[in-house]
Amino acid sequence: MRYYIGVDLGGTNLRTIKIDKTGEIYAHHKVRSEAKAGPEPLIQQIARQIEETISETPRQEIAGVGIGVPGPADPILGIVYQAVALTGWIDIPLQARLQELIKLPVQVGNDANVAAVGEWQFGAGRGCQHFVYVTVSTGIGGGVIADGRLLLGRKGMAAEVGHVIVDPKGPRCSCGDDGCWEAHASGTSFGRTANAALASAPTSQLHQLAQAGPLTGKEVIAAAQQGDPLALRLVEEEGRWLGIGMRNLLHLYSPERIAVGGGLSNALPLFLPYIESTIRVRAMLPYRDVPVVAAALGDNAGLIGAAALLMTR
Amino acid sequence: MRYYIGVDLGGTNLRTIKIDKTGEIYAHHKVRSEAKAGPEPLIQQIARQIEETISETPRQEIAGVGIGVPGPADPILGIVYQAVALTGWIDIPLQARLQELIKLPVQVGNDANVAAVGEWQFGAGRGCQHFVYVTVSTGIGGGVIADGRLLLGRKGMAAEVGHVIVDPKGPRCSCGDDGCWEAHASGTSFGRTANAALASAPTSQLHQLAQAGPLTGKEVIAAAQQGDPLALRLVEEEGRWLGIGMRNLLHLYSPERIAVGGGLSNALPLFLPYIESTIRVRAMLPYRDVPVVAAALGDNAGLIGAAALLMTR
Repeated sequence: MRYYIGVDLGGTNLRTIKIDKTGEIYAHHKVRSEAKAGPEPLIQQIARQIEETISETPRQEIAGVGIGVPGPADPILGIVYQAVALTGWIDIPLQARLQELIKLPVQVGNDANVAAVGEWQFGAGRGCQHFVYVTVSTGIGGGVIADGRLLLGRKGMAAEVGHVIVDPKGPRCSCGDDGCWEAHASGTSFGRTANAALASAPTSQLHQLAQAGPLTGKEVIAAAQQGDPLALRLVEEEGRWLGIGMRNLLHLYSPERIAVGGGLSNALPLFLPYIESTIRVRAMLPYRDVPVVAAALGDNAGLIGAAALLMTR
Repeated sequence: MRYYIGVDLGGTNLRTIKIDKTGEIYAHHKVRSEAKAGPEPLIQQIARQIEETISETPRQEIAGVGIGVPGPADPILGIVYQAVALTGWIDIPLQARLQELIKLPVQVGNDANVAAVGEWQFGAGRGCQHFVYVTVSTGIGGGVIADGRLLLGRKGMAAEVGHVIVDPKGPRCSCGDDGCWEAHASGTSFGRTANAALASAPTSQLHQLAQAGPLTGKEVIAAAQQGDPLALRLVEEEGRWLGIGMRNLLHLYSPERIAVGGGLSNALPLFLPYIESTIRVRAMLPYRDVPVVAAALGDNAGLIGAAALLMTR
């Protein structure tokens, strides 16, 4: 028997998992991550959690450890370039240091890329040779499987799918530039657009919700589900922006399928008609039949994908 | 000794080449292509040209034939989906039919993809593991080398780099949609913008050129080289749009280098300062140092790349 250890390193939680090559889960741990302790203490915590997850399993039955980190990371060199949610994490040789501590092969990856591998191997992308995973939450990230492999590029930095300019005069993006897809279509942008639109619809039920503080995307979705006209209009606009970005990704990567994860994906059926009609009108003919589906693994995509990194090398 | 045959099939010319694995050229033929004759007669013409190029060389010394076609083509199935410059070319099983005729392995590819392979193996992308080739002429096309391989995607349709929406309300594109990068930054768009801008600069020398008919990009470039203020302003605007599209490609594919081919690349030094400053301001920090260079093989990129298809399979 061979087991694979996956680690999902976040600014809030540190999660670990032990699976076999069919994706069956044998152990699963979650603790608060010591994100502010600095790189070395946090790496020590990661090593302890890995040991706890391996537990009694004989060392020779562990194929290795995959780890997803919240920021740009080089899977070839095993270096985390930056992780703003983790104090002091700049140019950290995570792979080398962790291998010293746990004496097992370690594979490092960016969290959105790693989640794409998880969905590809065990979720919505199963069976695809060409697959795009997009996560829509605070920002927009993603990962691309092309020709049966995770697309890496120089320094493993390919597939920054949220940072495509779709309108050079559009809103300011988290990356510092103007008009990225993320700035138009992320969950953050969806909420911001809703707050800005309030004045245009004095009778909307969103006004009542807005009294408790700025509207969130979640609240707009709830109001749309109850048929509020302003909320429905905002959902349509958001769906069209999502469709424009996905239409671009179809032409750039030619996937067999696009899966949507992240917070917004819970309400995907609400947005899907507008995403699909945008693709059907705006994409070139041979790309129009590519399905857009909800991701299947939820919060576990990154965790399972991290373990799966070792299977797909 | 092993030789590789490359075929560049166009609406005007049919070119063939015989090279060895170092790229050295042993034979080179060019004839008018029988583009209007229909698929079967044209395929017969291709076969005759291949035989002429092989000439006295013993069959066992020919590794195979690569062929670049002007339209979407599936390198895995060997099918040309469409080639508008060639009469009747829809869903043509070019690989199978040509293999029957010449009894040699045949590899099919889209012409821009094939040119990318040529530049990668023997031109501006030599030595790269990750490389983007962009051709800017009537339209904008390209090809991507990712992780040491030509990026294909479903049906070999990845890397339609010209058809990325960079402004949903922008000008109509050849693909039928609005606001693609091609519609903002191709040679065609450059000329169109120049004609539209004439009224704003009554003293520009471009007025004189425009008397003989609509301005072409070439004429604007010549006027800019002579210091005409309107032409210089148009060059700056074109350079910035080129930079916006390339900034997107950096984030999507993370190449080590971008090479620019096609008609506009002859005047690349004129546009480069604006391309580079756009990338330096708008790209995320770790992508800013990626060089943009002129393609090296000119008109031969597709021809040499076709032959090189067999080397990189």
